[in-house]
Amino acid sequence: MEGSSQPVEEIFHRKEMREVIRVGIYGGSGYTGQELLRLLFAHPEAKVVVATSRRFAGMPVGEVYPALAGLTDLVYTNDLPEAVAGIADFIFLALPHGVSMEIAPVFVGAGRKVVDLSADFRIRERATYEGWYGRHTAFEMLEKAVYGLPELHREEIRGTCLVANPGCYPTSIILGLAPVLRSGWIDPDSVIADSKSGVSGAGREPVIGSLFCEVDGGFKAYKVGGHRHTPEIEQELGLLAGREMKISFTPHLLPVKRGILSTIYAKLEKNVSVEEATSLYRDFYGKEPFIRICRNGQFPNLSSVVGSNFCDIGVTVDKRTGRLIVVSAIDNLIKGASGQAIQNMNLMSDLPETTGLPLVALYP
Amino acid sequence: MEGSSQPVEEIFHRKEMREVIRVGIYGGSGYTGQELLRLLFAHPEAKVVVATSRRFAGMPVGEVYPALAGLTDLVYTNDLPEAVAGIADFIFLALPHGVSMEIAPVFVGAGRKVVDLSADFRIRERATYEGWYGRHTAFEMLEKAVYGLPELHREEIRGTCLVANPGCYPTSIILGLAPVLRSGWIDPDSVIADSKSGVSGAGREPVIGSLFCEVDGGFKAYKVGGHRHTPEIEQELGLLAGREMKISFTPHLLPVKRGILSTIYAKLEKNVSVEEATSLYRDFYGKEPFIRICRNGQFPNLSSVVGSNFCDIGVTVDKRTGRLIVVSAIDNLIKGASGQAIQNMNLMSDLPETTGLPLVALYP
Amino acid sequence: MEGSSQPVEEIFHRKEMREVIRVGIYGGSGYTGQELLRLLFAHPEAKVVVATSRRFAGMPVGEVYPALAGLTDLVYTNDLPEAVAGIADFIFLALPHGVSMEIAPVFVGAGRKVVDLSADFRIRERATYEGWYGRHTAFEMLEKAVYGLPELHREEIRGTCLVANPGCYPTSIILGLAPVLRSGWIDPDSVIADSKSGVSGAGREPVIGSLFCEVDGGFKAYKVGGHRHTPEIEQELGLLAGREMKISFTPHLLPVKRGILSTIYAKLEKNVSVEEATSLYRDFYGKEPFIRICRNGQFPNLSSVVGSNFCDIGVTVDKRTGRLIVVSAIDNLIKGASGQAIQNMNLMSDLPETTGLPLVALYP
Amino acid sequence: MEGSSQPVEEIFHRKEMREVIRVGIYGGSGYTGQELLRLLFAHPEAKVVVATSRRFAGMPVGEVYPALAGLTDLVYTNDLPEAVAGIADFIFLALPHGVSMEIAPVFVGAGRKVVDLSADFRIRERATYEGWYGRHTAFEMLEKAVYGLPELHREEIRGTCLVANPGCYPTSIILGLAPVLRSGWIDPDSVIADSKSGVSGAGREPVIGSLFCEVDGGFKAYKVGGHRHTPEIEQELGLLAGREMKISFTPHLLPVKRGILSTIYAKLEKNVSVEEATSLYRDFYGKEPFIRICRNGQFPNLSSVVGSNFCDIGVTVDKRTGRLIVVSAIDNLIKGASGQAIQNMNLMSDLPETTGLPLVALYP
Repeated sequence: MEGSSQPVEEIFHRKEMREVIRVGIYGGSGYTGQELLRLLFAHPEAKVVVATSRRFAGMPVGEVYPALAGLTDLVYTNDLPEAVAGIADFIFLALPHGVSMEIAPVFVGAGRKVVDLSADFRIRERATYEGWYGRHTAFEMLEKAVYGLPELHREEIRGTCLVANPGCYPTSIILGLAPVLRSGWIDPDSVIADSKSGVSGAGREPVIGSLFCEVDGGFKAYKVGGHRHTPEIEQELGLLAGREMKISFTPHLLPVKRGILSTIYAKLEKNVSVEEATSLYRDFYGKEPFIRICRNGQFPNLSSVVGSNFCDIGVTVDKRTGRLIVVSAIDNLIKGASGQAIQNMNLMSDLPETTGLPLVALYP
Repeated sequence: MEGSSQPVEEIFHRKEMREVIRVGIYGGSGYTGQELLRLLFAHPEAKVVVATSRRFAGMPVGEVYPALAGLTDLVYTNDLPEAVAGIADFIFLALPHGVSMEIAPVFVGAGRKVVDLSADFRIRERATYEGWYGRHTAFEMLEKAVYGLPELHREEIRGTCLVANPGCYPTSIILGLAPVLRSGWIDPDSVIADSKSGVSGAGREPVIGSLFCEVDGGFKAYKVGGHRHTPEIEQELGLLAGREMKISFTPHLLPVKRGILSTIYAKLEKNVSVEEATSLYRDFYGKEPFIRICRNGQFPNLSSVVGSNFCDIGVTVDKRTGRLIVVSAIDNLIKGASGQAIQNMNLMSDLPETTGLPLVALYP
Repeated sequence: MEGSSQPVEEIFHRKEMREVIRVGIYGGSGYTGQELLRLLFAHPEAKVVVATSRRFAGMPVGEVYPALAGLTDLVYTNDLPEAVAGIADFIFLALPHGVSMEIAPVFVGAGRKVVDLSADFRIRERATYEGWYGRHTAFEMLEKAVYGLPELHREEIRGTCLVANPGCYPTSIILGLAPVLRSGWIDPDSVIADSKSGVSGAGREPVIGSLFCEVDGGFKAYKVGGHRHTPEIEQELGLLAGREMKISFTPHLLPVKRGILSTIYAKLEKNVSVEEATSLYRDFYGKEPFIRICRNGQFPNLSSVVGSNFCDIGVTVDKRTGRLIVVSAIDNLIKGASGQAIQNMNLMSDLPETTGLPLVALYP
Repeated sequence: MEGSSQPVEEIFHRKEMREVIRVGIYGGSGYTGQELLRLLFAHPEAKVVVATSRRFAGMPVGEVYPALAGLTDLVYTNDLPEAVAGIADFIFLALPHGVSMEIAPVFVGAGRKVVDLSADFRIRERATYEGWYGRHTAFEMLEKAVYGLPELHREEIRGTCLVANPGCYPTSIILGLAPVLRSGWIDPDSVIADSKSGVSGAGREPVIGSLFCEVDGGFKAYKVGGHRHTPEIEQELGLLAGREMKISFTPHLLPVKRGILSTIYAKLEKNVSVEEATSLYRDFYGKEPFIRICRNGQFPNLSSVVGSNFCDIGVTVDKRTGRLIVVSAIDNLIKGASGQAIQNMNLMSDLPETTGLPLVALYP
């Protein structure tokens, strides 16, 4: 498709007229790569100058991804990391785990800043990583990597050149539990996270299980007790609790394109009211631009966050059973992946943290 | 719509040529009423002779419900219970709670057999009922009512004239927990049921929250810690456990038309393997026609039960946390409502229990 | 999954106790093959004795297709046609076009009756077939093949051993136009068919275009002016009109699993009322068990046919423009494929035509 | 919900620090009213200062519409038009037809600029309006009203104080036909528009026909030959063709939330190639910021426009039948309603036309 180049110029002329961040996306044709392109198109201080894709090398981005038709002249390349490092200042790696670890060192070595969207630099303990994912070949890089959840690690993110962007499930669960774990109100051994994710979390690979006819009208749990995000969640929750954590985490596949909603249960060790619990969350996240705490007794709906970088959180106390119940909702491709990656880029680049990030969900 | 009357005759001529159960549906135009009509159309030993609807009185069933166009001459009436009792041998009440209790006594008094799909006769304790639902005006009828879960109460159902048909969520949760509660393997205080239901569970009332644009692409928890099915679930689980039970139960609204999937967590008090847990479930339900236990480590998908009367159950042991995780799946309008009601009718009428009930889900 | 074998026995004991048709399905793991398994499970006079699948050979049908778990012991095989011909009396070919033509002759040669669900034996003119599909290697078989639309070719179907089962789009369009083409009321050069199909029409191949995230919330036309069903439609419409036909046919991809709805436009050459048009359709299809004509001015909804073997048709006259507008709706996997194939089997086997076929849609 | 007010301030501080357009939305709680709120939130030169709603008067916008929680302090009011005229410079009327005509004169009389999203000022001929809609009580206002399709009437829009914002179906059909009607290549009597719309087009009224369970998995035509958008479409097409037009227009209900795709057929009166047709469209729309013409032989997908203000158009020539086939796609709530209304506001306010309007669809 071709449209007039006029609106792009009109709106983005600033990008041409002054210095902006020159961004490279390594692995730009999966859903998280495309989402980076989509979001960065609207970012006033960054411009994608190169996007690689083995599958689509040589094809214009606007053909592979018709929503961008007429809006960009970018063509997917098959450039080596070294070449990309020569063009771009800031690199997003949207690659499968195991591949990122091979490539990230090239960019870091060349003095580029990197946000890695894979799992490769999220796990601190080598044995833990290798137990869940397989061999790690760049473990020394981990020293430099910061876990990129701005609400918990903002200052370290500002100072690093390598961010391990959190997984989508971990983002929803860690943000949902952080206030109450740090407060010490709950029994850390009692945590159960029942999470439900849209299908884009499975990526754009053509597999039978992701076909419309297999998913629409259906619903299922998968990898019960064995999902690879478990150690990442437990690592961060452990830091918050100040002790080792083991949780039950059950992912489910929702028949929606985007969104993760986690329903989290924990035994209260203190007698608190809904109002107190809500206040705890409000106080903890008071200054956070991308966290919203629901009013007393209200809970979030995916519809209110899909298309935005928000994490909405509702909390209640089940007096009958003495449990705290927390529900958190994010767009898995935005706050759960590419939006959070750009939030990290903003921090690493001394830009206002909300720059270029979408605030209003596409509803209905 | 009009079709030839030929196929109906061809297939259902038997119904005309000999004695079948003459069925009345009181409240026949909501989703459970329509589902009774749909299922009974295919039942070889029963024939709906009257269906009431205040909203659609005077309209042919086939106009209100075009899937039945050409297949039935039935017209919705606004008949009083007394009149219906004069026409029908067997009555299904598909009415809101609070209304059933006014009407059921008429039918029982006239010697008719009744399956009530509301909550009115499910709760044994008056105070419990009234605490969750409001005043009960026919509590004396409860003596006669049997909780209509055939897998647990088959013999009592056979002998009664009034069945309280279980709620949809309770069916999925009670069937999911029965084997392990009776075995004593779990801590009864540790049970958490995270349930997800399709939209038909909310009925056919035109409310904003059930509109396509409000539901599609969304997902949310609702009535967290306060859903009226809680006392019904706890009553039946308590019978199985032999002690009082308090559970955490969180319903969610899935963007699908039909189906309930419950993910249930409980602390194991015994060190068991997945294989042992699976065997426990196989043994418990071995002879049940409508229960399927998944193979080791497999879990059900709504897609495999929607359109059928099956409850599919998967079970695993999370060794890391010492928890049992059970997933159960049903079609909320069939095994969770109208199909189970017909299963009860079959039992109360000395028919083979599976008569006329659908076995194969509509997949894809 | 394993369930009790009891219900199967209870219901299907008849199949064991007397002679039924022994059915073989060649290519049994795609959506039309699975749909044959699903529908034949409920057929009282037929039993699937063999189903082949290269991809799933050796796997139980109930594992590949969990909706059938516990209901059948059948295991997919990789048998050669000759072996299948030795086991089964009646064969369904659910194979890609080009493959059926290689295999059908084996079965016909062995004296078996065959319904072929591919396009291989639908086109009478060799040049037409080869222009749209590629080389035909068994054109001599065509002499024996009958186009399997019972509403138009019932008697020939009864007498043949080889039925070419119609395509899904052709079924919806030919049934929608037959009465008015035969009446001569419309200009045959003015016909436009705008058709919309659910995703199962694309089969179960794992391709990007059929992924949930690519389809849900979207809608598009495809193969505009160039879909392979065009010659098949024109051939049958030409027989009805008694002259050569050229139509505009535009298929679209609907974000639903099942169903085809065709909106058909034609210039009226006669001044007729809606009532006259409706009567024409009623009279033409008066005795057909699987055709329903909507009341004056009403139109069908996919919801009322999905899950059934019905074709629902609505018709109106647009006085302002002098056009006839017809809307027809079918379940593409049932009346548009496997249900119609069984309807043909019933005819070829001297069974009542409706035997074992579903009449009531799964609604909601 | 409450979030930090920081991001709003950060991003929108400009709105506080200088003059922006003060916008009033009269009827702000339906889907088009909400969409105006959503889009104007991101508009750098406009700020909503008042939104009325009879149903939700007194409730914060962020409670009624949780996607805006934490982003605005606006509370719905029940203000009279006179009061709103005292607060706002620019008024959007998102009211039912028949109501707008009562209220628009107040605002125009007070010297405010108005975009009316109803049908009240779209039809030039009183008899035509009254034949399709009922009595018109402010026909004298029509003199001042301009039909707000910027691609056809940009200069008149710039100079008016009252814009009649086009209907959603008309936008998709008129934009799809304008180039070829003006070229004189097609027979104006041969036009057929087969349109498919998402459910949000039916508004947020709680009616049974818009329930999730009635829509999901279904598809139907409605108001065949009698939809009220017909005269509006014919009026504008007539202006383009330079003669009276009568078309066949069939709307359908798609099971998606947003989007309209129209497939349009017309008899070619000239022998042209696909390339020539594509060039005609490219040339006609060459400078348009919100129109994209697909590459030769490609067609649009709703997925590529939903969430954006684009109209994507594909065109082909069906040589076999001598017909032109055009497919156009828009987001019915954006280019088909609120986005186009803002595009008109930009023109009426001497702002760059694309200001604040979304360019990239939310895909997947």
